[in-house]
Amino acid sequence: MKKKKFTIIGGDLRNIKLAESIEKDGHLVNIYGFSKAGFDIHIGESADLRSAIDESDIVLGPLPCSNDDVHLNAPFHDTLIEINDVLKIMNKNQLFIAGRISDKIRNMAEIYNVYCVDLLKREDMAILNAIPTAEGAIQIAMEELPITIHGSSCMVLGFGRIGKILSKDLAGLGADVYAAARKSSDIALIRSFGYKPVAIQNLDDYLPKMDVIFNTVPALVLDSQRLAHVSADCLIIDLASKPGGVDFEDAKKQGKKVIWALSLPGKVAPLTAAKYIKETVYNVLEELGV
Amino acid sequence: MKKKKFTIIGGDLRNIKLAESIEKDGHLVNIYGFSKAGFDIHIGESADLRSAIDESDIVLGPLPCSNDDVHLNAPFHDTLIEINDVLKIMNKNQLFIAGRISDKIRNMAEIYNVYCVDLLKREDMAILNAIPTAEGAIQIAMEELPITIHGSSCMVLGFGRIGKILSKDLAGLGADVYAAARKSSDIALIRSFGYKPVAIQNLDDYLPKMDVIFNTVPALVLDSQRLAHVSADCLIIDLASKPGGVDFEDAKKQGKKVIWALSLPGKVAPLTAAKYIKETVYNVLEELGV
Amino acid sequence: MKKKKFTIIGGDLRNIKLAESIEKDGHLVNIYGFSKAGFDIHIGESADLRSAIDESDIVLGPLPCSNDDVHLNAPFHDTLIEINDVLKIMNKNQLFIAGRISDKIRNMAEIYNVYCVDLLKREDMAILNAIPTAEGAIQIAMEELPITIHGSSCMVLGFGRIGKILSKDLAGLGADVYAAARKSSDIALIRSFGYKPVAIQNLDDYLPKMDVIFNTVPALVLDSQRLAHVSADCLIIDLASKPGGVDFEDAKKQGKKVIWALSLPGKVAPLTAAKYIKETVYNVLEELGV
Amino acid sequence: MKKKKFTIIGGDLRNIKLAESIEKDGHLVNIYGFSKAGFDIHIGESADLRSAIDESDIVLGPLPCSNDDVHLNAPFHDTLIEINDVLKIMNKNQLFIAGRISDKIRNMAEIYNVYCVDLLKREDMAILNAIPTAEGAIQIAMEELPITIHGSSCMVLGFGRIGKILSKDLAGLGADVYAAARKSSDIALIRSFGYKPVAIQNLDDYLPKMDVIFNTVPALVLDSQRLAHVSADCLIIDLASKPGGVDFEDAKKQGKKVIWALSLPGKVAPLTAAKYIKETVYNVLEELGV
Repeated sequence: MKKKKFTIIGGDLRNIKLAESIEKDGHLVNIYGFSKAGFDIHIGESADLRSAIDESDIVLGPLPCSNDDVHLNAPFHDTLIEINDVLKIMNKNQLFIAGRISDKIRNMAEIYNVYCVDLLKREDMAILNAIPTAEGAIQIAMEELPITIHGSSCMVLGFGRIGKILSKDLAGLGADVYAAARKSSDIALIRSFGYKPVAIQNLDDYLPKMDVIFNTVPALVLDSQRLAHVSADCLIIDLASKPGGVDFEDAKKQGKKVIWALSLPGKVAPLTAAKYIKETVYNVLEELGV
Repeated sequence: MKKKKFTIIGGDLRNIKLAESIEKDGHLVNIYGFSKAGFDIHIGESADLRSAIDESDIVLGPLPCSNDDVHLNAPFHDTLIEINDVLKIMNKNQLFIAGRISDKIRNMAEIYNVYCVDLLKREDMAILNAIPTAEGAIQIAMEELPITIHGSSCMVLGFGRIGKILSKDLAGLGADVYAAARKSSDIALIRSFGYKPVAIQNLDDYLPKMDVIFNTVPALVLDSQRLAHVSADCLIIDLASKPGGVDFEDAKKQGKKVIWALSLPGKVAPLTAAKYIKETVYNVLEELGV
Repeated sequence: MKKKKFTIIGGDLRNIKLAESIEKDGHLVNIYGFSKAGFDIHIGESADLRSAIDESDIVLGPLPCSNDDVHLNAPFHDTLIEINDVLKIMNKNQLFIAGRISDKIRNMAEIYNVYCVDLLKREDMAILNAIPTAEGAIQIAMEELPITIHGSSCMVLGFGRIGKILSKDLAGLGADVYAAARKSSDIALIRSFGYKPVAIQNLDDYLPKMDVIFNTVPALVLDSQRLAHVSADCLIIDLASKPGGVDFEDAKKQGKKVIWALSLPGKVAPLTAAKYIKETVYNVLEELGV
Repeated sequence: MKKKKFTIIGGDLRNIKLAESIEKDGHLVNIYGFSKAGFDIHIGESADLRSAIDESDIVLGPLPCSNDDVHLNAPFHDTLIEINDVLKIMNKNQLFIAGRISDKIRNMAEIYNVYCVDLLKREDMAILNAIPTAEGAIQIAMEELPITIHGSSCMVLGFGRIGKILSKDLAGLGADVYAAARKSSDIALIRSFGYKPVAIQNLDDYLPKMDVIFNTVPALVLDSQRLAHVSADCLIIDLASKPGGVDFEDAKKQGKKVIWALSLPGKVAPLTAAKYIKETVYNVLEELGV
């Protein structure tokens, strides 16, 4: 890839590591939005937003981009950064890349004629993110359970991106892996990989003997009725984004242990997460011919 | 599943095993079209087509259904069976299930008001069939190569259904597995599974050091130019259906070893193949609420 | 196995779980030495040592048996229990089983004519204990590292019981596993399992690119000179019992991160550890024909 | 390693490949004993035994060395080569390396003051040879069975060198792997690796549901009584050297399918076998400081 100029604005530790890593690859990197980060950054921060963005080819924002559709998600900065200000400074030759770009932000960008790419809508990013997510889930299980994963009975609900790699990791540690899915083709796939396939309509039969249940389905799979089949010693780890896949209220009433684990990549493996963001960004640039 | 009546007509050893296995599950089974099979069948053959089909709920034909769109593919029968005759006898309450049902056959079925299901168009069947296909490919590699799969460098071209399970099997035997794909999401997936990802545009760099190359892509991947990068000792196994993924003519000229291995499930593991057909048939019946 | 009477005296959570589990198998179980355990035990504690031991077939002590060769290791008891008192009460038809039985304790037992079995000298126990040890080590690595195990470079020093299962687990999570050993037969074994073998004399060449190093060798492998080759970001986890395999002083001076992780089974997976103790005890009884 | 002079005398295809490979590593290589090999050898054959051996540092004989303790095992040579002649020509500075060196041959060597190394007594060689042995056994199972290894129930009798790698390969292909052993420590090891452990005294309970049984134990494990528990469809592959581990007579009477598969490395993967011989030879030289 030809040498380019990147601006990294806001975000968490992942974006700082991302900036350092892109610079190590030989590109020019400006950063902005990390004024109160309590640790060393190997790149000097730009004086202001304009000088940070000026002459840059790519502006990389946070993942997610914003929590209120108005300000950039910049937890390490001492003042608020308005997304509108960022996009206003940018010109049509500059690319804006971030995570979860809402319709409102996208509309703003269109007004300023700025082309946007949402990393979290990309399949490659989602697959790569599944790796630290699965590993983070396993770490939680290890920390919470008085038994080893080896020899335990684990149920993975859903056989999408996270379900696949999570099942693989659990089997790799010697667990007895059950994976539940609705589609006959997923059941076939689960079987071909050597896990025990569970058709979702038969799930209740398997729940009582599970030591851990990992949910990856963004729908209410573990409702009150199903939770009643879960053993009191079983740990439920819900990896599905809001509203989650477990009736948390009811689980509490029934005395079932549930942990809702979100945004694991940035928490358990920020460096790996940064590496995957970088690779996806590079994929974007290659596809766009930038 | 409620007890049903099946008619199995024509096909190879897989269909005979299928008939025996369905009967073992407690269903009624008629068979027809195996008059010259040189081995024991544990089910008596019906006297004629009409008595075989009459009162049956499901008529199971061969995979593939026909080679000429006129006659049923019935290699073990002493006379020809016309598909038209089969469909004519059937009524609208009977289901016709077979593999690769051409438009012509489908039209015929419509005239007689018979509902058809093509097993080979189903994703579950395709995934299950990938298991014996991958294993058959490995058997060929073991037979042909003077080295072990363990420690060898294997390239899998394409990361679809066959590519996934083949890579898994090869890695399971201790090979160094490279998998090549075009899409960035497949590259991410290959990586998440722990194989070495190869972007198809960089394929030439990897070809020279491969001991075996398995092609699963139904397009000319290994053309003359790419074949030139393949080592003289390397074995190429093409698993893609016609027209295949290798320039066979040119490979011959260049002295490269190519084996075009088709229809492996029925050849290397007819019993397993029959089991998978049965399961897919049962999935079909469940989905149709039959 | 015929119904027997067990006495479990002292020890940590594992021994309580052990007692409960043996009782669940249908045996009679007395317990003693848990007076200040702050949690529910499903077995009533005996009034005193004598009534606990009386008429028992097997007396199970702690792992390790003692920290001072005088008192039983009983962290959950409010008074000290003298090993001499235990052995004095026992008769020659009763079996004493515990972990790490010193020569001094063994001599005491001989005086009272009590037959002793040291669980920690048994190969089956050592192999089973390696499972939670390896998993605990991986948990620590996951907690400490900002990267995933997947895709990381891991070095396992020593290919004995722990080295084998640890390498398997790491590979199962998608790490790049290097294992170092001295003997050519271990090098061959490492290779047959598909890990990258490192002859110990070449270790220095590999150290710089490692993300984690797990030591399982009970000898000073990572001395000052070798530590100098370890990257500043690398995490060293030493699993070797005293005196350990790392020059801790020097590591500190060099700013290298070292965690000395001992007695992991009881810490990370007490229930699994208890299960393995039980199985080993049962193996002992079967071998002795008790 | 310093450049050396090797003489390769007799043996099969493996020794020819061995010679070529050693030469490729930069050593001088003489060969003798392949006069009627019907294929190209890239090294010219020495005129006679004396010129072949003269000035050589290492003389590499066949594996096994001899079938009659008198002549070298040289299937590709047109005349007989007496071991006595070889040893007589050699001097005390030359090393004789071969496989299965009998006491008689060893005595001869002593007379001529020649130091001998038996490759087949070395643990590293035995472990490496287990790799092609296991793979060859799997190839046979694939060829003989009408089912896939994937999803099949496989029993591995004995958990030594071959048992370990064979179990790993079978599990890697998706089989349900049972491994039977006598020692409680092997049972623990089998379990830690994630296979289903079978104590040998309970073997009969498991035999009926096996699809393949691999014997690696050099003792009569499958006697008449045990064979009676084996299913008629089950394939037994005996990998144990003479007298084997199966009552072949009785198996025939009972109509059980048994294949006695010996010397697999040279048959299924001569190139890999040659590579492993070379590595073991190099290990020998390093250990001897040659």
